[in-house]
Amino acid sequence: MTSNQTDAQISTALSAVAARDAVREIFFVACGGSYAHMLPNQYIVEREAVAIVGHALNAAEFKACAPKRLGKSSIVIACSHSGTTPETVEAVKIARAAGALTISLTHDLGSPLDEASEYTVSYVHSPQTMSPVHSAAVLTRLTFGILEAREGNSKVPALTEALAKLPALVDKIAQDRKTDIAAFAEAHKRAPLIYTMASGANYGVAYSFAICILQEMQWINSAAIHAGEYFHGPFEITDFDVPFIQLIGLGPSRTMDERALAFAKKYSKCMTVLDAQELGLAALPDSVSEYLTPLVFSPFLRIYAEKLGASRGHPLTVRRYMWQMEY
Amino acid sequence: MTSNQTDAQISTALSAVAARDAVREIFFVACGGSYAHMLPNQYIVEREAVAIVGHALNAAEFKACAPKRLGKSSIVIACSHSGTTPETVEAVKIARAAGALTISLTHDLGSPLDEASEYTVSYVHSPQTMSPVHSAAVLTRLTFGILEAREGNSKVPALTEALAKLPALVDKIAQDRKTDIAAFAEAHKRAPLIYTMASGANYGVAYSFAICILQEMQWINSAAIHAGEYFHGPFEITDFDVPFIQLIGLGPSRTMDERALAFAKKYSKCMTVLDAQELGLAALPDSVSEYLTPLVFSPFLRIYAEKLGASRGHPLTVRRYMWQMEY
Repeated sequence: MTSNQTDAQISTALSAVAARDAVREIFFVACGGSYAHMLPNQYIVEREAVAIVGHALNAAEFKACAPKRLGKSSIVIACSHSGTTPETVEAVKIARAAGALTISLTHDLGSPLDEASEYTVSYVHSPQTMSPVHSAAVLTRLTFGILEAREGNSKVPALTEALAKLPALVDKIAQDRKTDIAAFAEAHKRAPLIYTMASGANYGVAYSFAICILQEMQWINSAAIHAGEYFHGPFEITDFDVPFIQLIGLGPSRTMDERALAFAKKYSKCMTVLDAQELGLAALPDSVSEYLTPLVFSPFLRIYAEKLGASRGHPLTVRRYMWQMEY
Repeated sequence: MTSNQTDAQISTALSAVAARDAVREIFFVACGGSYAHMLPNQYIVEREAVAIVGHALNAAEFKACAPKRLGKSSIVIACSHSGTTPETVEAVKIARAAGALTISLTHDLGSPLDEASEYTVSYVHSPQTMSPVHSAAVLTRLTFGILEAREGNSKVPALTEALAKLPALVDKIAQDRKTDIAAFAEAHKRAPLIYTMASGANYGVAYSFAICILQEMQWINSAAIHAGEYFHGPFEITDFDVPFIQLIGLGPSRTMDERALAFAKKYSKCMTVLDAQELGLAALPDSVSEYLTPLVFSPFLRIYAEKLGASRGHPLTVRRYMWQMEY
C-alpha cells in the first residue's frame, strides 16, 4: 500500500461526503485501540463543528443503543485493524442498512469490514512512527475533511502542513529522549500498577495506553484518568509510590492538565510527564497543533512500552487469552 | 425539602422546555460522581430520542471544548451536590450566556450553582436508598420529561410507576443480601485493587464506584471497564486473584454484560456479580426497566461500600486531600 493509495481513498470518501444531501452527525465506531483513536475525533467535532455532532461509541454499545437518529444524514466512521472485529463489522452493516454513509479504516483490504463498508481507507501500520497515512492521521484528515466539505471549516491546509512535519518530529523526539525512556523502563519494571492521565484531544491516548499497552500487553493494572475528573475522586489515590504517566496537551484543555499535574507531582514521586510544549509541538500551526498532540504522544509512548516490555522480559506480543481461544 | 417541592421544580423546568422554540441537544455537565449520574441519561437519549442529541461532559472539558453548537436550541443540565463546584458553576454561566436553557440539580438552594442557573431542582440525599426525588431519579425524570415535551416520547407514565416501586425494592434487596454484602467486605478487606465492569445504562454506576468509592473513599486502586471494551484489551489483566465487581443489566446491553461475565468468571476467582434480573428488576415495566437498573445498583453498591469501609477500618468519610487543602 502506498501513500498515494490512501490519499486517493480519502479523497473518494470525501467526495461522497460532499455529495450527500445532509450530514447531521458523525458516529465514530470501533473497539479497544481503534475506539481510542476515535476519541480525539469526537473532540475535534465538539470544538470545531458549527452544527455537525460527533459521537464516539464502542461498536457493541452502538449496536445496543441502536440510535433512532441513525439514517441518511449520518456518517459512520469505523475502524478495525484486521477488519475482522465482529462487533465493528456488524455495526457498519446496521449503519449501512439504515442509510448512513459508511467509511471504514482497516489495514486489510478484502477483509469483512472492507466488504461491509461503502468506502474503505487502508493505512500504513508502524506504531513507533507517524505519517499522514497512519491510521490516527487518516482519521484526523477524514474528520477535518468532512467539516471542510459540509461546513467550510478552513483548517485542512494547516493540518496538511502540520502532518507533513510529524514523521521527522516523532523520530527526533524519540532520539532526543532515549535516556528518559530507558530510565522509565527501569524504574517501572516491577510496578504492579501505572495510572495514565490526560484530557481533551489526548484522553484517547491515555485510555489506549491503559487498556491496550498496560493491561493487555503488559498485564500491569491501569486506568485512564481524565484530568478534568482527577480532583473529583481519583486524586485521593495519589501517593508517593503511585506511578502516573501524564500527558500535557496544547489548546484550552492544557489548563486542566496543568492543574492536575501541579497537584499530582506534589504527592506522587513517580510521575512521568510528557509535555507537548516541551516536545516542540507548539511549533506546529497554531490552529491545529492541539489536535496533533495525540499523533505524537501515541508513537512516542509506544517506544516507552517497547522498552518497558524489554525491561520486564514480557514482550508486547505476548497474550494469554487474545487469539489463543474462543471468547 | 419535600417531595412536593422537587416535583414542582421539575414541573417548572419542563414547562420552560416545552415553551422553547427548538431543542436540538442536551448537554449533561458535571464532575465526578455527579458526572457519573449523567452517563445513563446520555444513554437514554441515545436510545430513545428521535432527533435530540445527548452529550455527557465533564464540566472543565465542556468549558475547554466550548462547542460552537451551544445556543438557544441547547439545554444544559448540570449537577453539583454542594452547588459550589467551580467548573460546574462556570459551565452553567457559559451556557446561559450562550442562550441555552439551564437546569441544575443541587442539594443546596441558594448555592452558587442555584444562582447561576435559570432553573434549579433540589433533591433528597440518602445514598443507601432510592426514591423518585433522589438526584439520579430526578435526572431520569428530567430526561424523559424533555423527550416527552419535545418529541412525544410516551414512557413517562411507565417511568412514574416504576420509580414508585424503587424505595421498597431497594430496601428489600439490601435486606435479602445482607450475608452476601458481609462476605464481600470480609473477602476484599485487604484487596489493593478492585475493578468494576458494566455497560449501557450501568456504566456510570461502575465508573462512580471506581472513582468515588474505591479510589476516593477507600484508597483502593480501581478502573471502570466497559463490558463492550473488555475483550479488546482489559480482559488480559484477568487472573484468579484479580477482583471484579460486575453489573449485569437489562435491555440490549445485557448481551455484552453476559459475554464479558462468561469469560471473566472462568479466569477470576474473585467475581462479585450483581444481576438486575436476579434482583427482581425485570418485574418493573419493560419499556423502562433497563433505565432503572442504575437507580437500584447505585444505593445497593453504597451499602457494599459502607460494609467494606467498616471491615477495613477506613470509613467512607475519610479524605486526605479533598476539603483538606486548596487545589
